[in-house]
Amino acid sequence: MERENLDLVFVTLPRSIYYFTNFNTNPHERFFCLYIPIDGEPVLILPELDLEEATKKSNVKNIRTHRDNENPMDILRELTSQQIERCGIQKEHMSLSRYEAINNVIGAKNYIDIEDEIQDMKALKSSGEIEKIKNAIRISDLALSEGLKIVKPGVSEYEIAAEIQYQRLKHGADGGGLMVVSGEKSALPHGRTGNRKLQEGDFLLIDGGVMKEGYVSDITRTFVVGNINSEQKRIYQTVLEANLTAIDAIKPGISFGELDQIARDIISDKGYGKYFTHRLGHGMGLNNHEYPSIHGLNKDTVKAGMVFTIEPGIYMPSVGGVRIEDDVLVTEDGFEVLTNYPKELTIL
Amino acid sequence: MERENLDLVFVTLPRSIYYFTNFNTNPHERFFCLYIPIDGEPVLILPELDLEEATKKSNVKNIRTHRDNENPMDILRELTSQQIERCGIQKEHMSLSRYEAINNVIGAKNYIDIEDEIQDMKALKSSGEIEKIKNAIRISDLALSEGLKIVKPGVSEYEIAAEIQYQRLKHGADGGGLMVVSGEKSALPHGRTGNRKLQEGDFLLIDGGVMKEGYVSDITRTFVVGNINSEQKRIYQTVLEANLTAIDAIKPGISFGELDQIARDIISDKGYGKYFTHRLGHGMGLNNHEYPSIHGLNKDTVKAGMVFTIEPGIYMPSVGGVRIEDDVLVTEDGFEVLTNYPKELTIL
Repeated sequence: MERENLDLVFVTLPRSIYYFTNFNTNPHERFFCLYIPIDGEPVLILPELDLEEATKKSNVKNIRTHRDNENPMDILRELTSQQIERCGIQKEHMSLSRYEAINNVIGAKNYIDIEDEIQDMKALKSSGEIEKIKNAIRISDLALSEGLKIVKPGVSEYEIAAEIQYQRLKHGADGGGLMVVSGEKSALPHGRTGNRKLQEGDFLLIDGGVMKEGYVSDITRTFVVGNINSEQKRIYQTVLEANLTAIDAIKPGISFGELDQIARDIISDKGYGKYFTHRLGHGMGLNNHEYPSIHGLNKDTVKAGMVFTIEPGIYMPSVGGVRIEDDVLVTEDGFEVLTNYPKELTIL
Repeated sequence: MERENLDLVFVTLPRSIYYFTNFNTNPHERFFCLYIPIDGEPVLILPELDLEEATKKSNVKNIRTHRDNENPMDILRELTSQQIERCGIQKEHMSLSRYEAINNVIGAKNYIDIEDEIQDMKALKSSGEIEKIKNAIRISDLALSEGLKIVKPGVSEYEIAAEIQYQRLKHGADGGGLMVVSGEKSALPHGRTGNRKLQEGDFLLIDGGVMKEGYVSDITRTFVVGNINSEQKRIYQTVLEANLTAIDAIKPGISFGELDQIARDIISDKGYGKYFTHRLGHGMGLNNHEYPSIHGLNKDTVKAGMVFTIEPGIYMPSVGGVRIEDDVLVTEDGFEVLTNYPKELTIL
C-alpha cells in the first residue's frame, strides 16, 4: 500500500480473502470484502450467516456483518470517514455494478488495480500451500486409479465420472470438477460428460481436479479402450513428447512464452499444429485457473515457488483428442512434477 | 434495444448467452460474448476451442473466434465501425477490467445496464425450461433417496456426499453442488461437508442440486438420526410450518417481501427469529441463484412462470440447524411445488 501510495484497499475475490485471512467461503452474490485502511485495522465484512465460521477461522478479528435485508454499503459509509485519494481494488474480479455502488460511497479520486500485486504474491507458494496442493493431487490420483477399475467397453461416461467422484469424496475431497469424454467427443477440449458408452478404439479423456482445504489439483490423462490405430498412437506420442519436453525446460528465468513455444513446435513439426487450439497451461493453487497464463505472448518469467499446469493437446475432429496435463512446481534449479499418475500410453 | 435506444448490446454472462443462443459453455477467464448491433446480425465471439460445439448448438450462426495468444478486442474493433452512443452491458457480470478493455475499443458515450431486462426475461420460464428444471429435480430427488440408504450412526458426511453424488451422476446429472452437514455443524448455514461421523441425536442437513442440460435443481432436507430432543423437534416443526405457510401464500401479485415476512413471522413467534439469518429464497433455473431475491425489502411482485426456492431455516449454535428448501413454480392462480421429496420429520 505504501509503494502505491494507497489510502484504502478492497480485497473482494473470496479466494484472495481466504489467502489473506484464512477464512474461506463462497458468498454467492452477497457482499464480502476485506477492507484495509492505511492507518487502521483491517475489517472483514461478510454476510451474517458466515459469522460463526469466520469468527473461528479468520485471523482478521475485526468483523462486520450484514443481513440479506440490509445494505452492506452502509457499513462502508460508516467505516470511511475521510476523503480517499487512491483506493486499491481487484478490477478483474469486481463487477461494474459493485464498483459503482462502492464508488458511490467511497468516492475515491483514483482506483488502482491491485490484481497484479496480489497475483504475484499468490503465485509464489509457501511450503504449507504446496503441501495442500500435494494433498489435493494425492486424492485426485487415488480416485482416478480407483475409478478406472470399472472401465470397459459399454460403460458410459457418466458411470465413470460417478465412480471417480465417489472415490474422490470418499477420500476426503471437498469437491471438484470432472470431465469424462470418449471417442469423437474427446476432440472437444471443453466437452461434457454424457451418456455415450465406451467402444473399442476410443480415446478416453479424463480431466479434472479436486479441492481440499481451499487448494486444488488439476490433472488430465487420456487412455485407450482396446486397440487404436496408428494415427491415434502418433497423436498420443506427440502430445506426450510435448508434455515431457516442455516440463523438462522448466526452470527459473525461462519465459512462459518460450515454454508454450517448445510444446507447440513439437506438435507443429508432426503436422498437428492447427489442432492444438489452446495455451500450454495455467497457474493453479487457490483456483483452478490463476496467474500465470502460459501462452505464446506471455513474456513473464518462471519463478521458483510457482505451481502451474503443463497440458498440451491435439484435437482432431474425425479422430479424437488427447491431452496430458500435469501440475508442476518450480524449484530453485528446475522443477518437481507433483502429479504422480503414469502417462505412458495405457490400454484399458 | 429500441425502447432503450441502444446502438449495441453486449451479453457477457455465459448463462445469458446460453439463454439467447442455445450454446452453453464455461469460458473460464477467456473472452466470450454475444455482440448485438442494432442494425446488423448478432455475432457470437468465443475461444477457438469452443468453435466445433458452438457451430453445432448455437442458433446465432455468425461466429468469430480467438486463440489464447490473440487479443479478442481486435475482433470488437473490426466489428464496430461507427460511433456508439448507447451501449447495453451486463454491469453485474462484467468485471471492471473487462469493461475498461471494451470501452477502450468501443468508446461508447453511455453504458446502460441491461441486467434488469435480461433477468425479467429469464425469470419467466417457458414450458421447455420448466421441463428441464423438473428433470434436474427428478435426478436430485432420486439421488437423495438412493443416497440415504447408507445413512446410519458412524457413517461420515463425506461418505454420504459421495454416495449421493455417485447416484446423481449415474442418473445423468451434468454436475452439481452438495453440502452434507450433521450435528452441531448443521447450525452453519454455509457449512462444509467433512469427516464428522453421524451420531444418535444428530440433525443431518443435506443441501444441493444438480445441473442437467443447463438447468438446475436446488433442494434441502434435514433428517434426524435416532432420537431427538423436544427442542429439536420444535425447531423442525417451526421451519416446516414456515415453509408450508410461505408456499401456500404464493400467487401472482404478492410481493417477495411479503412472502419473506410470512415465514419470518412464524419463526419469530416461536422465539427463533434471530436464528433465521438469511433470506427466504431465490430465483433459479439457469443458475442456482438468480433473480428474484426473496427478502424483506424486495417489493417486486410474484409473476406466473417464475421458479424460485422457499427455504426457511433455524440455526442454533448449541443445538443444530434445520432448513427445508423447495423449488416452486408460480402458476396463473397459485403455485406448483416441483420438489417431490417428502418433508415430514424423518428419523433415519
